[in-house]
Amino acid sequence: MQKIRIGIVGYGNLGKGAELGIMQNKDMELVAVFTRRNPDSIQLKTNDAKVYSINEITFMTKEIDVMLLCGGSLTDIPVQGPEIAALFNTVDGFDTHKKIPDYYATMDEIAKKSKKVSIIATGWDPGMFSLNRLIANSILPEGDTYTFWGEGISQGHSDALRRVEGVQDGLQYTIPISEAVDEVRSGKRPKLSVKDRHKRICYVVLKDGYSEKKIEQEIINMPNYFAEYDTKVEFISQEELNENHKGLPHGGYVIRSGVTGINNEHNQIIEYKIKLDSNPEFTANILLAYVRAAYRLNKEGQTGAKTLFDIAPGYLSILSPEDLRRSLL
Amino acid sequence: MQKIRIGIVGYGNLGKGAELGIMQNKDMELVAVFTRRNPDSIQLKTNDAKVYSINEITFMTKEIDVMLLCGGSLTDIPVQGPEIAALFNTVDGFDTHKKIPDYYATMDEIAKKSKKVSIIATGWDPGMFSLNRLIANSILPEGDTYTFWGEGISQGHSDALRRVEGVQDGLQYTIPISEAVDEVRSGKRPKLSVKDRHKRICYVVLKDGYSEKKIEQEIINMPNYFAEYDTKVEFISQEELNENHKGLPHGGYVIRSGVTGINNEHNQIIEYKIKLDSNPEFTANILLAYVRAAYRLNKEGQTGAKTLFDIAPGYLSILSPEDLRRSLL
Repeated sequence: MQKIRIGIVGYGNLGKGAELGIMQNKDMELVAVFTRRNPDSIQLKTNDAKVYSINEITFMTKEIDVMLLCGGSLTDIPVQGPEIAALFNTVDGFDTHKKIPDYYATMDEIAKKSKKVSIIATGWDPGMFSLNRLIANSILPEGDTYTFWGEGISQGHSDALRRVEGVQDGLQYTIPISEAVDEVRSGKRPKLSVKDRHKRICYVVLKDGYSEKKIEQEIINMPNYFAEYDTKVEFISQEELNENHKGLPHGGYVIRSGVTGINNEHNQIIEYKIKLDSNPEFTANILLAYVRAAYRLNKEGQTGAKTLFDIAPGYLSILSPEDLRRSLL
Repeated sequence: MQKIRIGIVGYGNLGKGAELGIMQNKDMELVAVFTRRNPDSIQLKTNDAKVYSINEITFMTKEIDVMLLCGGSLTDIPVQGPEIAALFNTVDGFDTHKKIPDYYATMDEIAKKSKKVSIIATGWDPGMFSLNRLIANSILPEGDTYTFWGEGISQGHSDALRRVEGVQDGLQYTIPISEAVDEVRSGKRPKLSVKDRHKRICYVVLKDGYSEKKIEQEIINMPNYFAEYDTKVEFISQEELNENHKGLPHGGYVIRSGVTGINNEHNQIIEYKIKLDSNPEFTANILLAYVRAAYRLNKEGQTGAKTLFDIAPGYLSILSPEDLRRSLL
């Protein structure tokens, strides 16, 4: 079997997760990692793979089938995506929901010209959660869909915490409000804003000479980030933060609460739920399933940008259509 | 907007559910129901739809875009599927897992000849559960997948019950063993056979003159159906059975318990769960989403048999690809 030859662009948490994920897939191999750092500073876990400067990416069109873009959505992917799609099939986890239509248009134009496939905005939200929203909404046209995130660390809110003067370090966990989850599961269809569905817990390491009371007030009253939420602040030592909050757990739910029947008398509940010890490793594994899809779609002659909505699920599996019908249908 | 013109073949629980489901979808209309019964004996809930004898189906090729096959998988669909696929796009919920490969081959050959699309084996298992098994297995190659059915009525086991001499009426509920569900959710990966995952509760109405004790023993020792399971028998009156067990609730779970990390140290759990007040209405609504897909695929020039694995999720939604990217991704 000819393996899918993969390049990883960016070697942060997601890129490292992708390297490990490739080892779980017998039909994939990691050829190279591309970085803006000094390539010598990176030690891969894959024996035969190389580390190159990102500037050398243009020389690798013959060696790599699909490039996995593992940079950030804020500044990396909007620049790297279009550049790399001009040369390679790409898969990314671009996750700025509002900018997806524009990014799609850009990538579609470039990938059609380069005769490659670019699968954008995969992962779990956007990604698996989107897929479940779409399918559940299609099955149950009468109903409401609820997305809960967490329990897990929110990067944006953690950053906001750390910008408060007097905060030495900190992390913020987003936690679904369990009463809200239970109410939705029961078939009631409450109106719930984001703040009705989630609470926030902040673990904060204080700099010397600052008052806990004052910092706590500053945090819980911060507009846009915390003021609208049930927010708790706990002060802990740097050692405790390092010890107990190093992992990257996450999770969440998509629940569709629908009705059927001549008088809408039957509640029908669909719930999709994930519970992750490692968010970046899980996300990377989703991206890799779409690497397989990008490779196959392009082999079939398809080009342009795609999202999960455009891709038949069979393309994600290592199994043949016959085996899938026999073993998983 | 040109609506999708639908015919329903068979007007049992599933066909009745489909009629109600069509009313929830603005882009669909019910044109006719086809039955083996006397058409005059059927009163539809849809004003403009007609009831015809199934023998008249061949005259309706110009009036109907997609035929929804709502007969049974044992004897109806294996005969009706091939006959109707020779004339129409079809969607069915053929659910005899073992016979799917053969049925697929038959339908594929016929639908390719007739230049129609036949989507087979949709519903929830096979169907949504299959889709979740496929996607979760693709995302988490290292792991185990667990399917739990219930709590809900099993038709096959209820039939077996009612064949016992002395049983006047009866129903059997399949119930997931909650300790098994919790163990799987915890990230342990126990070996669990079907009987380790499910228990069975039988509600039995006894004929006059029969002994509860004797009938109970006969049921719980029935090989293949009950002997291997934790089975409870409760004797109730016909009135109570009619009163409390008329509904058709069901449900179930697909859980993928996977691992990632350099030493497989991270548990990653994906759970898909449904809780249904009406199994046939929910199943019908799934079939209708695939009616939309069959219609669109055939408009695009596609032909032959398809399963859920072959169909991009976007085809299921009433929304355009642009709207989907904007609102659900």
